[in-house]
Amino acid sequence: MKQIFALKGHIIDCDAQKKVRFCPDSHLLIENGLCLGVFPQLPAAYANVPVRDHGDKLILPGFVDLHLHASQYANRGLGLDLELLQWLEQYTFPQESKFACLDYACSIYRAFCRELRQGPVTRACIFATLHTPATLRLMDMLEESGLVAYVGKVNMDRNAPDDLREAGPEQAAADTRRWLAETAARGYRRVKPILTPRFAPSCSPDLLRLLGEMAREGHLPVQSHLSENRDEVALVKRLFPDSPHYAGVYAQYGLLEAGIPAIMAHGLYLQPAEVELLGQCGAFIAHCPSSNANLASGIAPVKALMEAGVPVGLGSDIGAGHSMNLLRLTAQAVACSKLLQRQTAAGNATLRLEEAFYLATRGGGAFFGKAGAFSPGFAADAVVLDDARIRLPQDSLEQRWQKLFYLGDEREICAKYVNGVPIDLQGQNQR
Amino acid sequence: MKQIFALKGHIIDCDAQKKVRFCPDSHLLIENGLCLGVFPQLPAAYANVPVRDHGDKLILPGFVDLHLHASQYANRGLGLDLELLQWLEQYTFPQESKFACLDYACSIYRAFCRELRQGPVTRACIFATLHTPATLRLMDMLEESGLVAYVGKVNMDRNAPDDLREAGPEQAAADTRRWLAETAARGYRRVKPILTPRFAPSCSPDLLRLLGEMAREGHLPVQSHLSENRDEVALVKRLFPDSPHYAGVYAQYGLLEAGIPAIMAHGLYLQPAEVELLGQCGAFIAHCPSSNANLASGIAPVKALMEAGVPVGLGSDIGAGHSMNLLRLTAQAVACSKLLQRQTAAGNATLRLEEAFYLATRGGGAFFGKAGAFSPGFAADAVVLDDARIRLPQDSLEQRWQKLFYLGDEREICAKYVNGVPIDLQGQNQR
Repeated sequence: MKQIFALKGHIIDCDAQKKVRFCPDSHLLIENGLCLGVFPQLPAAYANVPVRDHGDKLILPGFVDLHLHASQYANRGLGLDLELLQWLEQYTFPQESKFACLDYACSIYRAFCRELRQGPVTRACIFATLHTPATLRLMDMLEESGLVAYVGKVNMDRNAPDDLREAGPEQAAADTRRWLAETAARGYRRVKPILTPRFAPSCSPDLLRLLGEMAREGHLPVQSHLSENRDEVALVKRLFPDSPHYAGVYAQYGLLEAGIPAIMAHGLYLQPAEVELLGQCGAFIAHCPSSNANLASGIAPVKALMEAGVPVGLGSDIGAGHSMNLLRLTAQAVACSKLLQRQTAAGNATLRLEEAFYLATRGGGAFFGKAGAFSPGFAADAVVLDDARIRLPQDSLEQRWQKLFYLGDEREICAKYVNGVPIDLQGQNQR
Repeated sequence: MKQIFALKGHIIDCDAQKKVRFCPDSHLLIENGLCLGVFPQLPAAYANVPVRDHGDKLILPGFVDLHLHASQYANRGLGLDLELLQWLEQYTFPQESKFACLDYACSIYRAFCRELRQGPVTRACIFATLHTPATLRLMDMLEESGLVAYVGKVNMDRNAPDDLREAGPEQAAADTRRWLAETAARGYRRVKPILTPRFAPSCSPDLLRLLGEMAREGHLPVQSHLSENRDEVALVKRLFPDSPHYAGVYAQYGLLEAGIPAIMAHGLYLQPAEVELLGQCGAFIAHCPSSNANLASGIAPVKALMEAGVPVGLGSDIGAGHSMNLLRLTAQAVACSKLLQRQTAAGNATLRLEEAFYLATRGGGAFFGKAGAFSPGFAADAVVLDDARIRLPQDSLEQRWQKLFYLGDEREICAKYVNGVPIDLQGQNQR
């Protein structure tokens, strides 16, 4: 039997050309979890479907966070006087070691899931740690939250502390296969595994090769880091002297190629050949402006990447990024693009707000197929915002939309739908 | 009769060397609105004074916002696809024109004061508009709020729309004198007038000269803008061809000289001679990192200014800056300094978090005399924060302090004191 209903309110989304569409007092018609379209009045054939009337509130597509580390939730805002490689050593790795303890892991993952649920995000691509039991618990919790997520058990077998180093590539691959089998056995509906070599420096060539084989055999997606920091790029060059460039390392081992869905976080210092490779593979860049400022990495040339045909979305990159508020991250992407523009002088690096909104919704949503907008056939993921706290009575709908990104946070969110199903924002019915 | 009491909690402030002082479970002793000092235990002579025990909460000095436009409160987050001169024309000036209507002005100023009261700021230096009645109402509201503020009726007699242009320098000066007389007649205790030529391009040489004379005669402080944007700097050069540089315009007319307390907002593209001049005059730079990113102005070399002996504080620069949350602005000052560092390669541009904290409290506080810290003799301005929402149980006091800047907002603020007097955060007793 078909499940049909409509959401009513001021509906705003982005089209494929990155133009914002404002539909005041309109209906989003949803059938079996998919959008049928947005209508000022319900079409005659649907005149009698149930309507959830959100009145004067704003209805936006669910936001998509393409890159974050759930295991670094406790570290948000800490130690940000350091750069990447030092920060990994002093903050990230000691924190992730603690996830060997399932109780500790659950306490952090529970807090993480609560905040993710209450914020604007409906879909996310998440790094856990290398610990299989804790990673499975995180996946259980996310499944229960109603959100859609890819979650990765992290792989690393070198250049890491003893207690965060897998015992060689074969052992790492075997553990990863067992983890994959267990995720299949649990029959998650919304949460899926994603292969997660941490980044080239922490994986041996053999491990990368084995993961590449696993990706091809299992039609599995991949997430990793790429070109975040200049020291990191230099380190990759030393570790993989035969690769033409950083992206080439992943390509060489079958982790970056057409047919393998992939998300690479950052992409700041890419050579033209790397950009071309990403475009050819359809690999996504997760743009993480807040993280890149906090760790003094710099500013990714995101506009140039988009123009080169690389798919791009936004990533909070918790915990190097401090906030899971993708509304503000959208505004920060704009601000950082302007600072980049000021530096470069040549070319247009500036993201307009609607382009950043595109990245945060439809751009990142594309990694999940048809998601991140209200076009017909798209997943009915929506976030309903009551902006009474931040708007002024005289603000137009477009001005209300602008203010959301500069002044809004989870307090504005009063309802959220994923695949047409309401999310329990407070999680009162959840453990 | 002496009024003596103590605040108890985890007390954190900054010393003159920009070092953070952490005093867990300590007492801030306050006598007649001034700090006597911070003590682990109350000294014997004060053993019986009343203690307001804030338990496990954090007690920080009140934050100081050295530059914001109350009249642009409605514009926060709007039109930030533009740069300074276009933004002034399309957003700022049309908004400020509306302040000719006292009802409109009151509605905006009321909302502005409410938000200022609820946030971390205890002292601010504020631009109103050129309208005297509305400016006086803003001053009334601020006086009533219990906060300390300098407020400026704006002067501009050229390069502005007809309805925002004063009718020549003499008329502008006469209006300003009448405004000053009225502020004196109202007998404000905490709110003071500050001369406010908007910026050199919107003031004729005669107006600048008359304001300079007024500053000297009345021992009045001055606030204006300086070197925010490259086009603006070029415009000043065209308008004042005989001045050696932008700061020299203000100096030439007596608005930037030793003995005249002055705040200049921004200071991005200063020549060495301008930096030297600011240092010699003891003129403050209000560093506005959020505004400078939003309007694509760039990043001020704030570390270099500090090292050159220029006094610096932070400014939200509402409405080009979007948020009055000086906690987050402090973190943003750090992030922007790192992006500047990444650009410049040479020299150390990076602000550490404790240096940014210094700017937001003691640095800006110095414009008000002894304010912005808990040293003996300093004004007893304090903000009490309950960080239960953002901390984790295992966080140390220093980690809790770090997280405030990355994750905190007005929700954490549960009490505020100015000159030892509690502020009514909700303003329930105020009109």
